[in-house]
Amino acid sequence: MIVSALLTSVGINTALCVLFFTLYSILRKQPSNYEVYVPRLLTEGTSKRRSRFKLERLIPSAGWVAKAWRLSEEELFSLSGLDGVVFMRMITFSLKTFTFAGIIGIFVLLPVNCWGNQLKDIDIADFVNNSLDVFTISNVNSGSHWLWVHFSAVYIVTGFICILLFYEYKYISSRRISYFYSSEPQPHHFTILVHSIPTSSSGSISDSVQSFFSELYPSTYLSHVVVRRTGKIRSLVNEAKKMYKRVTQLRSDSTQQKNTQRGFPGLFSRKNSVIYYEKKLEDIEENVRLKQLEASLAGEEARAAFVFFKSRFGAATAFHLQQSVNPTHWITELAPEPHDVYWPFFSESFMRRWISKLVVVLVCTTFTIVFLIPVVIVQGLTNLNQLEILFPFLTSILTIKFFSQIVTGYLPSLILQLFLKLVPPAMEFLSSIQGYISHSDIEMSASRKVLWFTVWNVFFATVFSGSILSMFNTLLDPKNIPGKLAVAVPAQASFFITYVVTQGWTSVSSELFRVIPFIFSWITRPFTSQDDEFEVPSTPYHKDIPRVLFFGLLGITYFFLAPLILPFLLAYFCLAYIIFRNQFINVYAPKYDTAGKFWPIIHNSMIFSLVLMHIIAVGIFALKKLSLASTLTMPLPVLTLLFNEYCRKRFLPIFVAYSAESLKKKDRQDQNDATMTQFYENLVNAYKDPALLPIQHSQNNDNLRSPLISQA
Amino acid sequence: MIVSALLTSVGINTALCVLFFTLYSILRKQPSNYEVYVPRLLTEGTSKRRSRFKLERLIPSAGWVAKAWRLSEEELFSLSGLDGVVFMRMITFSLKTFTFAGIIGIFVLLPVNCWGNQLKDIDIADFVNNSLDVFTISNVNSGSHWLWVHFSAVYIVTGFICILLFYEYKYISSRRISYFYSSEPQPHHFTILVHSIPTSSSGSISDSVQSFFSELYPSTYLSHVVVRRTGKIRSLVNEAKKMYKRVTQLRSDSTQQKNTQRGFPGLFSRKNSVIYYEKKLEDIEENVRLKQLEASLAGEEARAAFVFFKSRFGAATAFHLQQSVNPTHWITELAPEPHDVYWPFFSESFMRRWISKLVVVLVCTTFTIVFLIPVVIVQGLTNLNQLEILFPFLTSILTIKFFSQIVTGYLPSLILQLFLKLVPPAMEFLSSIQGYISHSDIEMSASRKVLWFTVWNVFFATVFSGSILSMFNTLLDPKNIPGKLAVAVPAQASFFITYVVTQGWTSVSSELFRVIPFIFSWITRPFTSQDDEFEVPSTPYHKDIPRVLFFGLLGITYFFLAPLILPFLLAYFCLAYIIFRNQFINVYAPKYDTAGKFWPIIHNSMIFSLVLMHIIAVGIFALKKLSLASTLTMPLPVLTLLFNEYCRKRFLPIFVAYSAESLKKKDRQDQNDATMTQFYENLVNAYKDPALLPIQHSQNNDNLRSPLISQA
Repeated sequence: MIVSALLTSVGINTALCVLFFTLYSILRKQPSNYEVYVPRLLTEGTSKRRSRFKLERLIPSAGWVAKAWRLSEEELFSLSGLDGVVFMRMITFSLKTFTFAGIIGIFVLLPVNCWGNQLKDIDIADFVNNSLDVFTISNVNSGSHWLWVHFSAVYIVTGFICILLFYEYKYISSRRISYFYSSEPQPHHFTILVHSIPTSSSGSISDSVQSFFSELYPSTYLSHVVVRRTGKIRSLVNEAKKMYKRVTQLRSDSTQQKNTQRGFPGLFSRKNSVIYYEKKLEDIEENVRLKQLEASLAGEEARAAFVFFKSRFGAATAFHLQQSVNPTHWITELAPEPHDVYWPFFSESFMRRWISKLVVVLVCTTFTIVFLIPVVIVQGLTNLNQLEILFPFLTSILTIKFFSQIVTGYLPSLILQLFLKLVPPAMEFLSSIQGYISHSDIEMSASRKVLWFTVWNVFFATVFSGSILSMFNTLLDPKNIPGKLAVAVPAQASFFITYVVTQGWTSVSSELFRVIPFIFSWITRPFTSQDDEFEVPSTPYHKDIPRVLFFGLLGITYFFLAPLILPFLLAYFCLAYIIFRNQFINVYAPKYDTAGKFWPIIHNSMIFSLVLMHIIAVGIFALKKLSLASTLTMPLPVLTLLFNEYCRKRFLPIFVAYSAESLKKKDRQDQNDATMTQFYENLVNAYKDPALLPIQHSQNNDNLRSPLISQA
Repeated sequence: MIVSALLTSVGINTALCVLFFTLYSILRKQPSNYEVYVPRLLTEGTSKRRSRFKLERLIPSAGWVAKAWRLSEEELFSLSGLDGVVFMRMITFSLKTFTFAGIIGIFVLLPVNCWGNQLKDIDIADFVNNSLDVFTISNVNSGSHWLWVHFSAVYIVTGFICILLFYEYKYISSRRISYFYSSEPQPHHFTILVHSIPTSSSGSISDSVQSFFSELYPSTYLSHVVVRRTGKIRSLVNEAKKMYKRVTQLRSDSTQQKNTQRGFPGLFSRKNSVIYYEKKLEDIEENVRLKQLEASLAGEEARAAFVFFKSRFGAATAFHLQQSVNPTHWITELAPEPHDVYWPFFSESFMRRWISKLVVVLVCTTFTIVFLIPVVIVQGLTNLNQLEILFPFLTSILTIKFFSQIVTGYLPSLILQLFLKLVPPAMEFLSSIQGYISHSDIEMSASRKVLWFTVWNVFFATVFSGSILSMFNTLLDPKNIPGKLAVAVPAQASFFITYVVTQGWTSVSSELFRVIPFIFSWITRPFTSQDDEFEVPSTPYHKDIPRVLFFGLLGITYFFLAPLILPFLLAYFCLAYIIFRNQFINVYAPKYDTAGKFWPIIHNSMIFSLVLMHIIAVGIFALKKLSLASTLTMPLPVLTLLFNEYCRKRFLPIFVAYSAESLKKKDRQDQNDATMTQFYENLVNAYKDPALLPIQHSQNNDNLRSPLISQA
C-alpha cells in the first residue's frame, strides 16, 4: 500500500466520522429520536418526549462532548456500576499504553525504520507514492545494530504495560471490595444455588433440601426455593404477551378507524377479530394459570434449588465446602442477582451439564476454526460470472463498469461484515446452552468466545492469508511459529493500519449514531403507538469488549513493527473514550452487576497480546540476523507469564468470591440492624421464576379465581 | 535379539531369583539378621532376637510365602493403613489388567503376528535362532486386514482398563470415607496450618493469630500454636545426639576393655576422653536449653501457626474459605498428622514459597532432561583406551579378554544403575525444599517426579536412542509424534522384554533380600552393640510406586506391539505381589497415613500409559498402511481423557478434603463423648516442634533447671 492510498482512506473515514457526529448532534435533539439516542434519560424522566419545535434543534452542537468529557468516575459508577467503570478503565488503560508506546514509536522507532535502506526501491522525493513498508521494521537493514533500539522498546513497553496492569488490577480489586463493603444487604450475598440434587424415592426434592441443609448448617440455614420446570409455561406466557400486543394494536386501530372512517364495512370485521383475539388471549391465560397450578402442586421440581442463609458467611461456607460424599451431587454455586438469573437452564443434572458444556466447547471451537470456509464460498458467488448465471436479469446492469466495480469490490467485504455481525449473538446463544445460570455469566463467556474468534478469524486469518490449513500447519509446528509469524505479520502492517481507520473509526462512530436501532425505529415508527413501553438497552459488553481488546492486541503486536499504526489507534481510543461515556450517560442502563468481573478477561487478553508480541519479536530478530537479540527476548514471555501467574494468585481470588474477613465484617454491621427481619422475609421471595408470576392481560377479571395461583 | 539370547537371560535371572529366595529363606531365620528381615516383628516383640541354635534354621522353607499369600486385605489394612492397601491394589490392578491383556495377547495377537511374513528372513525350523521381531506387530504384512485384530484389542483392553480404573477409584474412595468415619478423633482433623501471616508492628504473630481467628470463627476457634524458627536449635540437638552416641560407645568400650585388658595404658586415655566428651555433651545441652528459652521468650516466631478448632467442620470451613482480603496473606492448609510434619520449612512467606517452588520445578525439569548427558560422558570413560590412560596399572589385566569383556559390557550399565539409584533421594530432596509441610506430601511429590523421570530417561531415552536433541525435535513437532513413535517403539520391543526380566525380576527379589541393608548390617555389626535402638524402616513409596507403575506403562504400551512381554510382566507382578505382602508383614511400618492419597498418582499414570499407547497405535496403523484403523483409533485418546476428566470430578475431591456431610456426621458422634475434653487438652499440645522438646542425654540432672523450658 502506498502513502497516498492511506491518506485517501483516512480522509474518507474522517469525513464519515464528522458526518456521523453532525447527524448525531442534530438528530438526538429531535423528540422523535429520543427513544434511540437518550432512552435512559427518557425512562428516568429527565427528558420529555413532547416539546415545541425550536430552530436550535437543527443546529449541530457539541455540548454532549463536553458533558461526556466532564463525567467523573464516581458519576459513571453511580450510572453504570462497577462494570461500566471497568469498561471505561479498559479504554483509559489503552490510551495510557498507546500514548507511551506512541511516543517511543513515533519519535524513536519510526525515524530508525525510515533511515534503513533494506527496501531498495525508495524515492524520498516522491513521498506520497512511497510504500508504507518504509515505515516498518522491514526497512531496517539485516544485522543492523539499530535493531537494539527495537529490542529495548520491546522491553520498556512490556515493563510499562505490566506495571500498569498490576496497578489497574489492584485498583479494581480494591474498588470491588469497597463496593462490597458499602453495599446494602443484597439477596444474592445470602443465597447459594444448589444443583444436581439426588432424587430420593421417599420424599420430594424440597423435603430433601430442607433436611440436608438444616442438618448441615443448623445455625445459618434460613429457607429454600426449589426451581420448577417451567419451559412450557414460559412459551405460553410468551404467546399470551404476543397476543396481548396484537389485541391492543387492533383495539387502537379500530378506535382510530372509528374516528376517521365511520360506517366502512372493514370496521365490523375488525371489531370481530378484536373479540376473537381477546377470547383467544383469555384462553391462553387460563391455560397458563392451570399449568402454573400444576407446576406448584404436582411437583414438577427440577433438581436445583436456591438456598437462603441468615448470613453472608453462612452462604459462603456452604458454597466453598464440598457438600456431599459424592462430589457430583449437591453442587453449589454462588447465586446471581435475582433479576440476573437465566431461568431456562435449571433442570440439568451434573452429567448433562458437563456433556452440554463439552459439546458447546467443541461446537464453538469448530465454529471458530471453520468459520471462514462458508464465508469464502459465499464470497466466491459474488464474482461476476456466477452472479450472471444465478440472476440473469442483472446482466445488463453488471456490464456497466461502475456497478461491476462496486459488486466485485464491496460485496465480498460486505458479506464478511454481515457474517461477522452474526458472531456475537451466535456466541451468546452457545454460552446460554452451556449451563450458565445467569445472564452475566453468559455474557462473560460470550465475551471470551468472541475475543478468541476475532483473534483467530481476523488476526491469524489475515496474517496467514486465510488458509486454515497453513494456520494449522503453523500451530502444529511450534518450533517454527516465531519464524513464520515474523515473515507474515509485518507484511500485513498496512492492512491493519487501514483496518484501524476503516473498521475502528467507523464502528465507534456508528456506535454513537446507533445505525441499526435508528433504522429500526424509522421502520417501526408507523406501526407502534407512542405510549408503547420500550426497553432501555443494556451495554452489549460481549460485543464491545472483544472489539476494543482486539484493537489493543493490534497496537501491542504492531507498535514496534509498524509504529505508524499508533496515531490512528490513539484517535480510535479517544473517539471510544468520548462516545462510550456519552452512551453510558444517555443510552445504556446496567441490567446486572458483576462488580467488575470483566476485568480478568481484559487482563488475560493483554497478557496474551504481550506474549504474542514477544514471539513475533523473537522471530523478527532471528530473521534480521541479530540472533543475540532474539535469544535475549526469550526470557520476556516467560517473565510475563510469571507476572500473570502472580496476578492470578494475588488478585483473581478476589473476583471469584469474597473473603471470610470481609464477609464477617459485613455480617457484623447488619447484626444490630432492625431492617434485617424485613430483609429476610423479602429474601425468601426474591428468587421467583417469572414464568410462575400471575399474568393478567385480558380484561376479564373473573379469571383471577384461585388465590393459590398467586402464591405459587 | 534372538530367541536363544532371551532364553539365556530368562534362565540366568530365574536362577538368580531362586538363589535370592533360598538365601532369604535361610538368612531370615538367623537371629543376627532379624534386624534386616523382620525389624517390624522385632519391635512388636513377636520375634525374640536370642534363641538357641537349631538345625532347621539352615533348611530353606517356604512358610513365609504361604503366610504372605494368606494375608487378607483387612489384615494388611491394620498393618500398614490405607496406603499399604493402595500399594497392594496397584499390584493386583496390574495383575488383573495383564492377565486379561495376556490372554488376548498370547492367544490372539501372537499367532497373528507369527503368521505374517513382512520380515522375510525367517526360518521356522530354526526356532531358537529366530529374531524376536517375528512375535511383534512388525511381522504383520502392511495393509493386512489382520491388523483389525490389533485394532479391536486396543479398544477392548482400553475399555477393560478404564472400567477397572473406575471401580478401583470408587472402591478406594469408599474405603477412604469409611476409614474416616471409623477413625478416632485425630488432631489433624481439627487443625489447620496458616502461613504467610502478615507481620504487624504492634503485636506479636501470636496475638494477631488469636485476634484474627477468634473474630472470624468465634464459635469454633479453640487455640493456636505459632511455629518458631528452630533451625539453629535443630542442628544443636543433632550434634548433642551424635555426641551422646559417641559417649555411650566409648563408655561401653571402656567397660569391656576393663573386663578384658586390665592395666593397659590405652584405658586411661579412653577414660579421659569419655569424661571430655561428656563435658562437651553437657555444654551442648546447656546451649540447646538456652536457645530454646530464647526462642520461646524473645519471640523468634515464624509467620506460620497451627490453629485448632473445636470441630472438624470448623477446621474445614477455615481451610476452604479465603481468609484475608489479600489472598496472599493468611493462607490456610490442612494440617498433616503431628508426627508427619516437616518442621524445617515453616518460615517461608508467600513469595518465597512460590519462588522456591518455581525454582524446584525448573531444576527438576532440567535434571530430568539433561540427566543422561553426564551419564553418557562417564560411561564414555569406560572404554578400554580411556581406562588404560587413566589407570596405567590396569593395562595388563585389561588385555585378558574375559576382563575386558566384563569392563566394556557391564561397567556402563553398572554406572547407569548407580546414577539411577541416586534419583529417588535426589527427587525427595528437591521436593523437601519445595515448601511442602509434611513428609507424606514430600514423598507424594517425589513419587510423581521419579515417575516422570523414569518415563523420560528410561522409556523415551531408549526409544529415541538417548539423543536428547532427537527427543526434543520429536516433541516440538507434534504432527509427527505418532509416526516417529510407531517406528521407534516396536524396534525396542526386545530390549524392554529383557528389561522386564533383568531389571524387574532382580529388583523385586533384591527387595526381598534387602541387599543394601543386609550388607550395611554386616559391615556395621562389629561396631554396634546389640542393645542399640534401631528404626523400623518405612515403605519407600517414592521409590517403589514409580517402578511398579513404569512396568505397568511398559505392559500397556507393548501389549499389542509385542505380546511376548506379557508373560514376563505377569511373572514380575506375581513376584511383587508375594514379596511386598511379605515386606509389609515383616519389614516396613507405616510412618504416616495419607489415607490413600497415592491412588490419584497411580490413576494418572495409567491414563498416561493408555494415551501413549493410543498415540503409538495411531502411528503404527498409519505406518502399516491401514489408514482407516488409524483414523478410527483417534477418538480413543479423546474418550480416555474425557473418562479421566469425569473421574477427576467424581473422585478426586474426595482425596483432597472431606465433605461437609461426613465432617458433620463425625462431629455429631463426638458431641456426647466425655473424652473430648481430654482430647481438646491434648490437641493443643499435639503440634510441638521436636527441636523445642527438652533434651536430657547427659547424666548431670541439675541441668533441668527451668520449668519454663518444658512448657515452651
